[in-house]
Amino acid sequence: MMEESKIIRDPIHGDIEIEGVFLDLIKAPEIQRLYDIKQLGFAHLVFPGAHHTRLEHSLGTYYLAYKTAEKLELDMDDKKLIACAAILHDIGHGPFSHTLESLLRDSINVDHVDLTEELIYGKHTIFEHDEREFIESPTVYEILDNHGIDHKKIVSLIRGNQIERKEYLSQILNSTIDVDQLDYIIRDSYYTGVAYGIIDIERFLQTLTISDNALAISKKGIGVVENILIARTLMYSSVYFHKTVRIAELMLSKAIELTEDSEPFDFFKMTDAELIYNLKDKGSFQSEIATRLKYRNLFKQAYAKSKSDISMEDMDVVKKLEDIDFRREKEEEFEKRLGISKGHIIIDAPIKELHLSEPRISQTDVRVVDERGKHRNLEDLTPFANAVKMRDIPDWVVMIVTDEKYRKIVADNAEKILFY
Amino acid sequence: MMEESKIIRDPIHGDIEIEGVFLDLIKAPEIQRLYDIKQLGFAHLVFPGAHHTRLEHSLGTYYLAYKTAEKLELDMDDKKLIACAAILHDIGHGPFSHTLESLLRDSINVDHVDLTEELIYGKHTIFEHDEREFIESPTVYEILDNHGIDHKKIVSLIRGNQIERKEYLSQILNSTIDVDQLDYIIRDSYYTGVAYGIIDIERFLQTLTISDNALAISKKGIGVVENILIARTLMYSSVYFHKTVRIAELMLSKAIELTEDSEPFDFFKMTDAELIYNLKDKGSFQSEIATRLKYRNLFKQAYAKSKSDISMEDMDVVKKLEDIDFRREKEEEFEKRLGISKGHIIIDAPIKELHLSEPRISQTDVRVVDERGKHRNLEDLTPFANAVKMRDIPDWVVMIVTDEKYRKIVADNAEKILFY
Amino acid sequence: MMEESKIIRDPIHGDIEIEGVFLDLIKAPEIQRLYDIKQLGFAHLVFPGAHHTRLEHSLGTYYLAYKTAEKLELDMDDKKLIACAAILHDIGHGPFSHTLESLLRDSINVDHVDLTEELIYGKHTIFEHDEREFIESPTVYEILDNHGIDHKKIVSLIRGNQIERKEYLSQILNSTIDVDQLDYIIRDSYYTGVAYGIIDIERFLQTLTISDNALAISKKGIGVVENILIARTLMYSSVYFHKTVRIAELMLSKAIELTEDSEPFDFFKMTDAELIYNLKDKGSFQSEIATRLKYRNLFKQAYAKSKSDISMEDMDVVKKLEDIDFRREKEEEFEKRLGISKGHIIIDAPIKELHLSEPRISQTDVRVVDERGKHRNLEDLTPFANAVKMRDIPDWVVMIVTDEKYRKIVADNAEKILFY
Amino acid sequence: MMEESKIIRDPIHGDIEIEGVFLDLIKAPEIQRLYDIKQLGFAHLVFPGAHHTRLEHSLGTYYLAYKTAEKLELDMDDKKLIACAAILHDIGHGPFSHTLESLLRDSINVDHVDLTEELIYGKHTIFEHDEREFIESPTVYEILDNHGIDHKKIVSLIRGNQIERKEYLSQILNSTIDVDQLDYIIRDSYYTGVAYGIIDIERFLQTLTISDNALAISKKGIGVVENILIARTLMYSSVYFHKTVRIAELMLSKAIELTEDSEPFDFFKMTDAELIYNLKDKGSFQSEIATRLKYRNLFKQAYAKSKSDISMEDMDVVKKLEDIDFRREKEEEFEKRLGISKGHIIIDAPIKELHLSEPRISQTDVRVVDERGKHRNLEDLTPFANAVKMRDIPDWVVMIVTDEKYRKIVADNAEKILFY
Repeated sequence: MMEESKIIRDPIHGDIEIEGVFLDLIKAPEIQRLYDIKQLGFAHLVFPGAHHTRLEHSLGTYYLAYKTAEKLELDMDDKKLIACAAILHDIGHGPFSHTLESLLRDSINVDHVDLTEELIYGKHTIFEHDEREFIESPTVYEILDNHGIDHKKIVSLIRGNQIERKEYLSQILNSTIDVDQLDYIIRDSYYTGVAYGIIDIERFLQTLTISDNALAISKKGIGVVENILIARTLMYSSVYFHKTVRIAELMLSKAIELTEDSEPFDFFKMTDAELIYNLKDKGSFQSEIATRLKYRNLFKQAYAKSKSDISMEDMDVVKKLEDIDFRREKEEEFEKRLGISKGHIIIDAPIKELHLSEPRISQTDVRVVDERGKHRNLEDLTPFANAVKMRDIPDWVVMIVTDEKYRKIVADNAEKILFY
Repeated sequence: MMEESKIIRDPIHGDIEIEGVFLDLIKAPEIQRLYDIKQLGFAHLVFPGAHHTRLEHSLGTYYLAYKTAEKLELDMDDKKLIACAAILHDIGHGPFSHTLESLLRDSINVDHVDLTEELIYGKHTIFEHDEREFIESPTVYEILDNHGIDHKKIVSLIRGNQIERKEYLSQILNSTIDVDQLDYIIRDSYYTGVAYGIIDIERFLQTLTISDNALAISKKGIGVVENILIARTLMYSSVYFHKTVRIAELMLSKAIELTEDSEPFDFFKMTDAELIYNLKDKGSFQSEIATRLKYRNLFKQAYAKSKSDISMEDMDVVKKLEDIDFRREKEEEFEKRLGISKGHIIIDAPIKELHLSEPRISQTDVRVVDERGKHRNLEDLTPFANAVKMRDIPDWVVMIVTDEKYRKIVADNAEKILFY
Repeated sequence: MMEESKIIRDPIHGDIEIEGVFLDLIKAPEIQRLYDIKQLGFAHLVFPGAHHTRLEHSLGTYYLAYKTAEKLELDMDDKKLIACAAILHDIGHGPFSHTLESLLRDSINVDHVDLTEELIYGKHTIFEHDEREFIESPTVYEILDNHGIDHKKIVSLIRGNQIERKEYLSQILNSTIDVDQLDYIIRDSYYTGVAYGIIDIERFLQTLTISDNALAISKKGIGVVENILIARTLMYSSVYFHKTVRIAELMLSKAIELTEDSEPFDFFKMTDAELIYNLKDKGSFQSEIATRLKYRNLFKQAYAKSKSDISMEDMDVVKKLEDIDFRREKEEEFEKRLGISKGHIIIDAPIKELHLSEPRISQTDVRVVDERGKHRNLEDLTPFANAVKMRDIPDWVVMIVTDEKYRKIVADNAEKILFY
Repeated sequence: MMEESKIIRDPIHGDIEIEGVFLDLIKAPEIQRLYDIKQLGFAHLVFPGAHHTRLEHSLGTYYLAYKTAEKLELDMDDKKLIACAAILHDIGHGPFSHTLESLLRDSINVDHVDLTEELIYGKHTIFEHDEREFIESPTVYEILDNHGIDHKKIVSLIRGNQIERKEYLSQILNSTIDVDQLDYIIRDSYYTGVAYGIIDIERFLQTLTISDNALAISKKGIGVVENILIARTLMYSSVYFHKTVRIAELMLSKAIELTEDSEPFDFFKMTDAELIYNLKDKGSFQSEIATRLKYRNLFKQAYAKSKSDISMEDMDVVKKLEDIDFRREKEEEFEKRLGISKGHIIIDAPIKELHLSEPRISQTDVRVVDERGKHRNLEDLTPFANAVKMRDIPDWVVMIVTDEKYRKIVADNAEKILFY
């Protein structure tokens, strides 16, 4: 019997051929749901082309993982494992999950990787209400079972844990130069139209190798890896942490934070649009925010301070603001002293959160193998590695956003209320 | 006072600078709503990158209209009129409107241009429920008023009607080589990754001119216009009328058609996601279809016939199938004779509908001005013009789609039930 | 022993990996010489980016031939044969050979394919003077020998002759949709910046198949093949037969034609630059032309007539002008009657020459295999095939070019002298 | 009278419209000659697409200079000056001038800027022999005269000297972020196919401004300028200082260095091809080198040492090797001790030369203007600026190249002869 195979046209990687377990997984409801989860949340409010979704990114990550496994001449079993892990690595993402990740962590102490794990183990379903009765496609759990693939190994690879002492295997998906980042940098560049993220994938794959059980590059690859690290940094500062995008995220977070349901608001199975739609029934403030986000009627920046402009003393306060309780206290003080209605002022102190949500952002350790097989560390071979670590992202260490009508009064009183 | 101006990065046209009435219009709720209406409906089910929306397309059409007006050295008033018309030309689109257009026309005898007109005249609002109270931005009607722009002229230009005997003005937005088509061909090509739609905009603009009050090209422009016409044709056959995309559209149409609300189902203010979400409450069949669309669990083609394979006799039946009532009758016959449950079989006879929804598809009349100022018609200068008219789109003249489980029985009985 | 392999970065196809006999051939002096033969002759005078050479094109043709052979799952021997033929197919080209081809044919009755054959059989060398003593690399003849490859088969494939009844094998390099054309259309598009030649190679390769021993495409490939045929046509009319490029070619041809060496002027081993340089010593007219070409000081068009503007009667004269002797006679008449110095007037009647030098230009026969394995001809499936045949190239059927100072007098007397 | 204007299609910047003095200059013989001077010398030996010439680069630099002048809203006179200077900035380049620049400086103490100056002042002609009699187009000197443009100011701008206290004017063409570099980085990236040089020109132009008479960028431009600096660095290390390209350059330099003409070998008016051609008559060694370069039969690297692998002591010797006389002495020692024939061994110690030929390579001082108009230096705002200065280019501090047959013996004795 001829095995079914499918060719999917991806604007980034061209034709992607997919068959067997991979094709089954792509058809699984957990993956198809990702069609409705935007990769960059609210970024389209600033970059109108940025509507691409986690589904395309999952497909692209699969493609790169498979290509990498081929380049490294892995055996068929390992190829399958890493490519399956790549397809599945984002299925636990809820709506606007980049945005809501820290809220999730604070309130119920789980993150999207925990949810991914539960879905893979079949402990959880993404179906809402009666959806299941109409959909006969097998779930991810069942598909892995059918193909005799070990669920545990997949979870390990997604978590970046070594299996069978093959460090390189998990590094394909979790390291300074993993294919997850590669795909999102290039893809986000294409859909936003921001040119920083153009990376020479062919060149990168050519220079990859395995050395002492770990992923490494040859000396010829230093240039392309420098390029990747710098592209990542520039994309973070110009797209992911764009001020306006961040404001929309803060508004949504605040709306959910103020939702008074006794139990944690169950929104993780929802799609982006479903979340916004449901928010409307959760109270007047929530309805306001949902409507404003729909029509791009955003809060404005009333105050901001960058790292190079802040005093040491004030920086100490900013550090304290990274604690959510202290931040809420300060917000309430603003509300009370300036007569601002509940929820209409938000303080942002993003640095800690950035490093929690994307710990790879300042990683620059890459193993380089020279002509004689000797190991070097990228950080010793190029000053760009160190520079990447020191480059500030985002542009502000603290920012206050509020409704247009409160903007002036907040601006005038910000420093007084914040720092004294 | 310095006028506010904004630069928006579009992956297609690069930086688009926007100010004055144009910037106000872009911020209007009627335009911002288009962020949630996909340009290509269900095309992302086949081309996973195709999530771009009518907002970006409206912005791109504005850009090209403005550039064209500059090239033609129009005066400021006319420039403003055509650029405003370009921004607004799609605001009447409902969710999946390409898909539901013919249904709309059949049931309540309006189309998206009628709705666009009502919105421009302020006779209608796109706000649902209490949305209005949270959004203070002026509406399109108010903005045009504020800037002293004649609503009537805008509507005329969108409808392709001449104003002040300037045929060229409305032709910028409505003709064989209008900027609406130019933008969507290039844009759809970019986001689907299908290479046919690459067009040399710079070259096109250079060869544009006005001759005897009408839009024309110089002889140097023949090549680029041939390219545009052919690109349009190839995009229609490979993307817009892709079989799988069409099946999803047919499923949605059927779900709405079978909704039993006494008055016409009021979905026109909704976004794509809101429509799917609301459909779930309209009955079991509707809920099934909404869920299947969400998880890409589509009907399958059970039968199809192309123009070159069909007999003259059968073609007569197909012509009759273009009438919706006859089609429904036949569908019911299939249901009854083969024991298929209501709505699970759909007959498609798309040719008439294609020409109603996109009458420009076989237009090839373009005025060409030669070196001595003499008028020629493109159709006399290149055999490609005629070829475009004769090229079949789509690949089938009749197709039957049904649930996987009925596929075989329908395939076996299709000809018998359809043609005898 | 590890075999040497090399990766070459091509702006068109990306990284091209090359090894074994292919790598040896790339290093052969006959191929390296192609670095100095521009693919498009004088096209850079109009499209300043067009300096690419036959070497890159040979490399790209090799790449596509190899990819095609892989897609068709040919055995290693056939893969090697067609890929070697692809590398070597242009080695017989002399300087500006596109330009001088017809002159060559008229004077010594050989063409570049004959010369290619002689080089492959080792009957000829491309070395001039004492060059051989410094270059130790083996020649093409020797390399094929070393690798046990049959010279005869290579020549057959280059000539488009069937070997071992495998029609498809020679069709890869010689047919309506051969890889030679594919590469030059895309490549010329990239370097000229003219967008017509963008072709979806991946898609094309996917739809290729073998049917009844001949190359064919599946029905899915109709769109991409339509695109190839039209791209070719538009590139011919806008680039290859651009008026100014043609004028430079006519000037060079005239200079060589008037060179009075008793034996055929031996320029075939020369590179482009060597030809121009040597021309300077061949007489005053030759020196003038060489200098004018170097500094882009070209003759001007004094008269031209397009197919749609010419009378039936005059067209008969044009047909006669396709004969070189009649053309020379007429040129002399112009010189005598208008006092124009020798060589400063050139009549061009290009149609016959075009079809001799590129017989594929109006070929549109492509075998299409439908779902049931039935053969169809592309010409029956799309009106574009026929349109391609009927599209006029170039823009003129007759043109007279001359020195700026004679322009007016020639323009005024052209019709009189030409047609009466 | 309508002024003539011309549109030229550039693959990098699209359509470039050109008229008036600029069009006259483009037609001047000094500019047309640049069609035969490759931008990257021998780079095509490694990157086969890299045949682009200084003519295209001059055109592109003109385009960017003009766009910059428009963005900065300069008056028409200044616009003309800087755009003329941009067109003309490279006319003094001889064949392979990047390669031969240091030789030129050592032997006759002039560089290409001196020659540019002489051509602009009309003190010099690029015509050889009797070429002048065939070419009637005015020279650069005459054209500037005709249009009343001050030759002196053009020369000042090309030399980077301030005129009328407008520092910003000369900085457009001579500074850390000048348009000369911008154009060549992007252009070289396109033609080599190396992706590092992709730069967002639109974004760059938007952020440019004038502050205190000097060119500056706004804070929004930091990202794009970081990108430019890094792109330049990566292009230098992967393309401009590619080992194989360098070897070809060293061979040519050696051939000229060993030419025994009593007076300085007059090759500056020659084109690339003319130089190689003429070299053949200058002696046996010269003929060998010319032939080997034509057929890409290059010397090989026998020994190399990178900065991170060399001892402090040996580095002192390397420093001494930067002196040409000491280098020749060492080469002779190799020849004598190892029996190598004259000219067949070349020592390269490139660091000093690199900084002489491209002093901008480690410049990173860019003025940044913040929201309140305060001046900052880029070097204080991003760690990438400093990293660019510290990044090593090229990969070796010393390299020895020789004929294949001497490779082993040189490799075995290199350290001994070099360092003891």
